[in-house]
Amino acid sequence: MICVVFAHPYPGRSRANRTLVRALLDLPGAEVRSLYDLYPDFDIDVAAEQAALERARLVVWMHPVYWYSVPALLKHWFDQVLAPGWAHGEAAAALRYKHCLWVATTGADASAYAAEGVHRMPLDSFVCPIRQTAMFCGMRWEKPFVVYGAHRLSVEELEGRALQLRSRIEDWRETHPTTATGEGAA
Amino acid sequence: MICVVFAHPYPGRSRANRTLVRALLDLPGAEVRSLYDLYPDFDIDVAAEQAALERARLVVWMHPVYWYSVPALLKHWFDQVLAPGWAHGEAAAALRYKHCLWVATTGADASAYAAEGVHRMPLDSFVCPIRQTAMFCGMRWEKPFVVYGAHRLSVEELEGRALQLRSRIEDWRETHPTTATGEGAA
Repeated sequence: MICVVFAHPYPGRSRANRTLVRALLDLPGAEVRSLYDLYPDFDIDVAAEQAALERARLVVWMHPVYWYSVPALLKHWFDQVLAPGWAHGEAAAALRYKHCLWVATTGADASAYAAEGVHRMPLDSFVCPIRQTAMFCGMRWEKPFVVYGAHRLSVEELEGRALQLRSRIEDWRETHPTTATGEGAA
Repeated sequence: MICVVFAHPYPGRSRANRTLVRALLDLPGAEVRSLYDLYPDFDIDVAAEQAALERARLVVWMHPVYWYSVPALLKHWFDQVLAPGWAHGEAAAALRYKHCLWVATTGADASAYAAEGVHRMPLDSFVCPIRQTAMFCGMRWEKPFVVYGAHRLSVEELEGRALQLRSRIEDWRETHPTTATGEGAA
C-alpha cells in the first residue's frame, strides 16, 4: 500500500501538482489523501491519518514548496499526526522501516537554488527539516523527486514528469516486494 | 516599535515560552501577538498582521521548535501574511530593512543537535528555511536567541534567560535609534 499525502493549498488552481497527482490516482494500491480538500478548516482527523499510514509501506509527501518548506496544513499534519508515543518516543514505532518519498514542485528554476541565485542555497539545504522529520520517525528516506520551474513547464512536460513519478513508484514497489521484507501488507 | 509574533500551540501549558514572553509584555514599544490565542481556528487576519508589521522596526519570531521548524500556525502566518506584492515581488518592500530576531526554544539539549546526537545536525541546519524567508523579504537577520533544553531548565534559569532576551532587545533598540537609520517609527 502506498499513501500519498498531498498538500496543495489551492488544489483546483494547481497545474503541476494536479498533473502529478492525477498520474497516481489509479495506481494499484495507492491511496491519495488531499489534505486541503479533506481538512479546509485545519481540523485534521488524526486517527484516520494514522490508520492510513499504518496501512502503507511507502509514504509520499507531495506538495509545492511554500516558503522553503511544506505548506502550513502539511506542517500541521506533522505536528498532529506524528505524535509522541505513536510515531516516536519510547517503544513507539508506527512508522519504523516504512519508506518516505518527498515529491516537491518549485515555482523557480533550479538555478535559483544556488549561492548566486535568488534563493541563495540549494534546495537540499531547505529539505533538512523534512528529511529529519521522516528519519526521526524511523522512516527510510528515498531520493526526492523534485520538479523545478513548475510554472514554466508545458502541459506535455508536466505530463512527462508525472509519468516518471508513476514509474518511480512502480519501480519502488517491484524492488521492495512485501514477502522479501516482511514489513507489512502490500 | 517591536512586533513579537509568538506561536506556541498551547500557550497555557508552555513553561519556557510563557516565561520569555512575559518578560517582553511591558517592554516599551513592544507589541506581542500570540497567534494561537488570536487565531485558534487558523483564520488569520492578514490585514491586521501586515499592519502590525508595518508599524515595527524589529520583528521577533518566537516559538518552540516543532519538527525542526515553526509550529503550523506560524507557517500559516508565513504563507498568508508574507504575501507576494506586499512582502516580496516587484516593487514590494513592506518589510525591507526591518530586522528579524528568531527566538526559539527546544526540548532537547544542545548536544542532541550534532552529528552524534539524536537530531543528527546542528540547529543551524534546520533554521535555513526560516532565515531565508526573512531574507527573501529583505529583512536583516539578527543573531538568533535559542534556549536549548527548555524542559529541564529551572524556573530561575528560565527567568534568567528571559531577562537576557529582554536586555538583548533593549540593546538592539539603543544601537538602532530611529533618527540614525531613518527606517521608520520607533
